[in-house]
Amino acid sequence: MIKAKARAVDGPDKPFRTAEIQRRTLDSQDVLIEIKYAGICHSDIHTAHGDWGPVNYPLVPGHEIAGIVTDVGAKVTKYKVGDRVGVGCMVDSCGECKSCLKDEEQFCLKGNTQTYAGVDKYGELTQGGYSTHIVVTEKFVLSIPDSIELDEAAPLLCAGITTYSPLNHWGASSGKKVAVVGMGGLGHMAVQIAHAMGAEVTVLSQTLKKKDDGLKLGADHYYATSDQETFTTLANTFDLIINTVSAKIDINAYLSLLGLDGALVNVGAPAEPLAVNVFSLINGNRSFAGSNIGGIRETQEMLDFCAEHHIVPKIEIISADQIDEAYERVLASDVKYRFVIDISTM
Amino acid sequence: MIKAKARAVDGPDKPFRTAEIQRRTLDSQDVLIEIKYAGICHSDIHTAHGDWGPVNYPLVPGHEIAGIVTDVGAKVTKYKVGDRVGVGCMVDSCGECKSCLKDEEQFCLKGNTQTYAGVDKYGELTQGGYSTHIVVTEKFVLSIPDSIELDEAAPLLCAGITTYSPLNHWGASSGKKVAVVGMGGLGHMAVQIAHAMGAEVTVLSQTLKKKDDGLKLGADHYYATSDQETFTTLANTFDLIINTVSAKIDINAYLSLLGLDGALVNVGAPAEPLAVNVFSLINGNRSFAGSNIGGIRETQEMLDFCAEHHIVPKIEIISADQIDEAYERVLASDVKYRFVIDISTM
Repeated sequence: MIKAKARAVDGPDKPFRTAEIQRRTLDSQDVLIEIKYAGICHSDIHTAHGDWGPVNYPLVPGHEIAGIVTDVGAKVTKYKVGDRVGVGCMVDSCGECKSCLKDEEQFCLKGNTQTYAGVDKYGELTQGGYSTHIVVTEKFVLSIPDSIELDEAAPLLCAGITTYSPLNHWGASSGKKVAVVGMGGLGHMAVQIAHAMGAEVTVLSQTLKKKDDGLKLGADHYYATSDQETFTTLANTFDLIINTVSAKIDINAYLSLLGLDGALVNVGAPAEPLAVNVFSLINGNRSFAGSNIGGIRETQEMLDFCAEHHIVPKIEIISADQIDEAYERVLASDVKYRFVIDISTM
Repeated sequence: MIKAKARAVDGPDKPFRTAEIQRRTLDSQDVLIEIKYAGICHSDIHTAHGDWGPVNYPLVPGHEIAGIVTDVGAKVTKYKVGDRVGVGCMVDSCGECKSCLKDEEQFCLKGNTQTYAGVDKYGELTQGGYSTHIVVTEKFVLSIPDSIELDEAAPLLCAGITTYSPLNHWGASSGKKVAVVGMGGLGHMAVQIAHAMGAEVTVLSQTLKKKDDGLKLGADHYYATSDQETFTTLANTFDLIINTVSAKIDINAYLSLLGLDGALVNVGAPAEPLAVNVFSLINGNRSFAGSNIGGIRETQEMLDFCAEHHIVPKIEIISADQIDEAYERVLASDVKYRFVIDISTM
């Protein structure tokens, strides 16, 4: 077994503490990664707090992982010691079901293995990236292009692919009008990616507080959704709306902003169902869709796309001692736009 | 003005009566049609009964119209006297908005002119196909292929295009698994069209009563939705589900039947909103969409497709005196699968 230092949480209301965890001895297709940076995703907070159901504590969150390969198993062919690599939200899947065969392992019909709070094929609880080392089968390890710094690469592994996948799938491109709802960790990535894909980008945020940032990142327009007039002005406008807000919204008001054949894609889900007026969909052949991260092939494609287009998240580096404080600030929407833990402070 | 005999209704609870209505004198682009057959659509009943809001009575319903051209305006180029033609759910639109320019006049941003219970550009209330004659601008007149009988052509103008359009738009084709929810006037058309497009077709009906008909019309499989096991057996199966049922259904149960990237398309809308669990969409990148008839170009394409593939509705011909009785039977689901009025009995 390989020892790793980590930060773990022991219960919904408990602070993070230092911990020592075990990583498995390398199997023939495994890669050992020395983690350099780990991003803080809102999902980490939901899981640590038990919002999404019972959790096996102690828990080490973290699924936005960037680091360096320090050892490889005998049959590993994709990576060698010294390679710059990343790990995202999942670390394994069955590899045989319809979804896996389509390179969409996030929808593995037997359930993929989540990077943390999951159970792997050895029957062990998985622990995430708030730690110095991780062992992952090579298929689920991503190559980080040289032009992307490791600290900035980390959030791409979740926030990047979560927004790239629906923009790619629904054809954001030149001539298309794309709106991004929410200007947070996900939203500020969606704006950059949609802009790089050639779309005309509009941000729909509660207020105009982050307007300057939005325009600098590539948005062409920026509207406040607290102003009811926004919904009149922009009726029947967009080909695609990416909704990064997980809170319960008036979905029919947003659907009315879609033009002919337009799609509104949720990348998060509120806990309660949304009341969809079906006339909102029938009028204009509109769609209400969902999207969940992306497969490993598409995640690599996203990293290469971001390298080519010089897209990186705006980050604030914190030390391992600041995780609790960072969680509080995320919940208060006080982050521009992603916290990244410097694992050397672990 | 041109006099026409018609059947009109004077209020929500009133029976049909004979009436004489006026059709406008032909404008330069108008076509005068001697109506031979008119289908009875469930929408006719909703409108006649005032279910969808206040109606200007007396009302002459009917938007599944087939007949023969008997006169044309000076500038008409598409049609001549003697041509076999049809008219569907709309008779005019602005011709200038984004939707009209994309040949999707059903979504005219200024509102298209409905075939009945609408107001035309002359400020006159429109009256529908339960009558001996109608005058329509040539752009909204369809050509009925010689191989389709006029009585069987009538229901294609609404039931045909309503199901053809989403099947076409969402790519029903060889290798695709398509489910049709509901085996009524719309459903029995959807089965035939999806089969002709090459898809593997499954009917999801409340019971197995119409199973023999479904299989004869081209369905490969037929399941009863009253049996909960259907939802277990068919989980994650379909690329496309066409929901022809307007009643409120458990939408999340049906969404769970969609495979990766699958879409469920409603062609009708229940009066109340549907509670969509967004996790149903995010899991598998699924879509919940709407579709509303089709544009004139696509309606002609549908008629030509049906002629090429020998697709016709199953109809029961009735006389003009039987409209009230037919309405009652539609409401009791006692029709296989469309009533068509023989206008010569008017």
